[in-house]
Amino acid sequence: MKNLLVTEMRCALCQKSYQPDQIRYTCPDCGTDGILEVLYDYGQAAPSMQPKALRQAKPGLSRYAAILPIANPSHLPPLRVGGTPLYHPQRLGHLLDCPNLYVKDDGQNPTGSFKDRASAICVASALDNGIDLITAASTGNAASSLSGLCASVGLKTIIFVPEHAPQAKVTQLLMFGATVLKVRGTYDDAFELSMQATAKFGWYNRNTGFNPFLLEGKKTAALELWEDFGYRVPEYVAVGVGDGCIIGGLWKGFKDLQRLGLIDKLPKLIGVQAEGSSVLSKAFKNGDKVVAEPDADTYADSISVGMPRAAAIALKGVRDSGGFFITVPDSKIMEAQVMLAKYSGVFGEPAGATPLAGIRRCLEEKLIDHQAEICVLVTGNGLKDISGAMKSLTVSAYSIDRDPSKLETSLKELHIV
Amino acid sequence: MKNLLVTEMRCALCQKSYQPDQIRYTCPDCGTDGILEVLYDYGQAAPSMQPKALRQAKPGLSRYAAILPIANPSHLPPLRVGGTPLYHPQRLGHLLDCPNLYVKDDGQNPTGSFKDRASAICVASALDNGIDLITAASTGNAASSLSGLCASVGLKTIIFVPEHAPQAKVTQLLMFGATVLKVRGTYDDAFELSMQATAKFGWYNRNTGFNPFLLEGKKTAALELWEDFGYRVPEYVAVGVGDGCIIGGLWKGFKDLQRLGLIDKLPKLIGVQAEGSSVLSKAFKNGDKVVAEPDADTYADSISVGMPRAAAIALKGVRDSGGFFITVPDSKIMEAQVMLAKYSGVFGEPAGATPLAGIRRCLEEKLIDHQAEICVLVTGNGLKDISGAMKSLTVSAYSIDRDPSKLETSLKELHIV
Repeated sequence: MKNLLVTEMRCALCQKSYQPDQIRYTCPDCGTDGILEVLYDYGQAAPSMQPKALRQAKPGLSRYAAILPIANPSHLPPLRVGGTPLYHPQRLGHLLDCPNLYVKDDGQNPTGSFKDRASAICVASALDNGIDLITAASTGNAASSLSGLCASVGLKTIIFVPEHAPQAKVTQLLMFGATVLKVRGTYDDAFELSMQATAKFGWYNRNTGFNPFLLEGKKTAALELWEDFGYRVPEYVAVGVGDGCIIGGLWKGFKDLQRLGLIDKLPKLIGVQAEGSSVLSKAFKNGDKVVAEPDADTYADSISVGMPRAAAIALKGVRDSGGFFITVPDSKIMEAQVMLAKYSGVFGEPAGATPLAGIRRCLEEKLIDHQAEICVLVTGNGLKDISGAMKSLTVSAYSIDRDPSKLETSLKELHIV
Repeated sequence: MKNLLVTEMRCALCQKSYQPDQIRYTCPDCGTDGILEVLYDYGQAAPSMQPKALRQAKPGLSRYAAILPIANPSHLPPLRVGGTPLYHPQRLGHLLDCPNLYVKDDGQNPTGSFKDRASAICVASALDNGIDLITAASTGNAASSLSGLCASVGLKTIIFVPEHAPQAKVTQLLMFGATVLKVRGTYDDAFELSMQATAKFGWYNRNTGFNPFLLEGKKTAALELWEDFGYRVPEYVAVGVGDGCIIGGLWKGFKDLQRLGLIDKLPKLIGVQAEGSSVLSKAFKNGDKVVAEPDADTYADSISVGMPRAAAIALKGVRDSGGFFITVPDSKIMEAQVMLAKYSGVFGEPAGATPLAGIRRCLEEKLIDHQAEICVLVTGNGLKDISGAMKSLTVSAYSIDRDPSKLETSLKELHIV
């Protein structure tokens, strides 16, 4: 059972088209790389996506139901997913001499990350289809998001994680009642087992780049940006990139707006990767040839990906938008994380601050104009990774005596008074 | 400079009245216990607080500007403070046989806690008065909230913390650019130094129970609840209580609604304290005699308070509402934290889950009816204190082999398939 306006599922690689109910995951011809795009009867969907209609619609993802692959919007989880704030942080813009810089804070989603958008659609789709169990392989935001949203509606979750997954991340999963399976191996082993379980037991699978509906959840950030900007789009949207599914989702959202005749031109998408984990950035320069890098590593753990699972759509999307990829060293991500918090009050996780580091580089290298309208998408809350934040800090607390009579002297020594 | 509708500041202890600009902090006659209530010309304020007017007003705290002690609503920080979601979590209600149980998730504020409401008013008041520096003593949510909101507008913050403040909490302050002074002593020493600095250097002070405007920020949660419930109030509102300022603020908000003629009756306020930190609960039973307990301790660190700074208003407020205090052991707070996450998808910090533990006890002891309409206010995000959550968990992850051929056997052994 699906939104009746879904007309086809089209492979992002070979362009083969499938009937809406024919395939659940990737293109059979292209294998797990063949991520499917969900397409709609945009003519039928158009009226409810007009600004006038949306101004009357309730907040939340259900407002976009006409172009979501769900049959029943009441199956969306009851938590407040999406509708995240767009800020125009004057101080940050001033610091970078970039007055039209905007920040959309998706760390304000219920479980603290952008991934709630994708999980919400996954949950609704499971409920549409009478499915009571969802599985995924993840150590991070995707799994905690899935577990949290499933908890809100009573779906079971079974999460495969590598044995060395940080206890803090496993804690969130367990709090939400997920069954957590620690695989004595790597993330890739965990991923493989989750795929096996899906094949063998029919468990519904939320793996990134595999389940095509996730991209449809992620695209809602693009739809919101269009609304946030007053039913138009900025010149650039920058986001951190690991497996490519977020930037792919953004492209899909803007593309759908174009298909609906609601925007002429897509924002140029800037995919920002850490130097140590830059498979897609390299592929973008090398004719889309994706070469896995098993040793990929960055301090921005949410975008530390050696084998990007949504490569096809990410590369296609960035190219189609007229955008590009750029890389930044971890040191610059750390600087950006502190700068974002200190100059806008938005505490993002390292991956969330990565696009700001990218924009700084773009400005320095004159790849974009200082007057351009730019939106940085912060994809995760800094509270998710306090140890990451600790690494970013270059300042520390001062120690002072408890004796009130010494206070003024102490403060003078520290040049505070 | 102030909201011209502020008519007086009245001491919660001796009832003495002061002119709006006469006093900045507590009642001179009662000392630091004499918290002041800000009162307004409610007749003048009434039109803009009518449901019809509010339905047209922008989201955010500025919608309540008529009864906030600020001169210029544009001085409110640009972050999305307030407007937090109210949920009606069916599964949780079913579990507790309490179908009319609601949860308001204030952990969804920008820095992850209810305290953002108070900090927002403090920031606006500073900007109203041309103040560029705010100080506070805190290891927790109040300080990170103040630092975050100040970062968004460029105000300086100087935070006094005890030397053993957890590094994770200090990290948030430093990320937001606060100057952090670690006092070689206890929390009380830190508090004392912050008061000295205020007296000596004229720094604007955000300490709880001292600055009367903070309560006005906290009351906005009550105003929102009234709106969330369709311009009426539930029978009970339960909240965790440490120093008493949150429950005092809720009372003030509901009281203002009553003064405005918008509600007849206040919700009964249920103050839930941890057994190990229950000064106000004891005082409520003993004729409001507040006896400090320097050894107070609970795992719910945000409400671990031996010397409650807003005792007068908390006791008065709970009594006036027809409510009561109740205590729960830490073990029940831990259970409630897991229950809240698992059955509603809301991951609250321990203090945030405390009112749920209190409601469970009330239901068990038949202090409240199972059919009653109850709202639990979750005051902080669980991501703020992952180590606290780890202590709450009674389940753990399962370890399985990476070999796909062994998957089915492993899952059978674990009774998963």
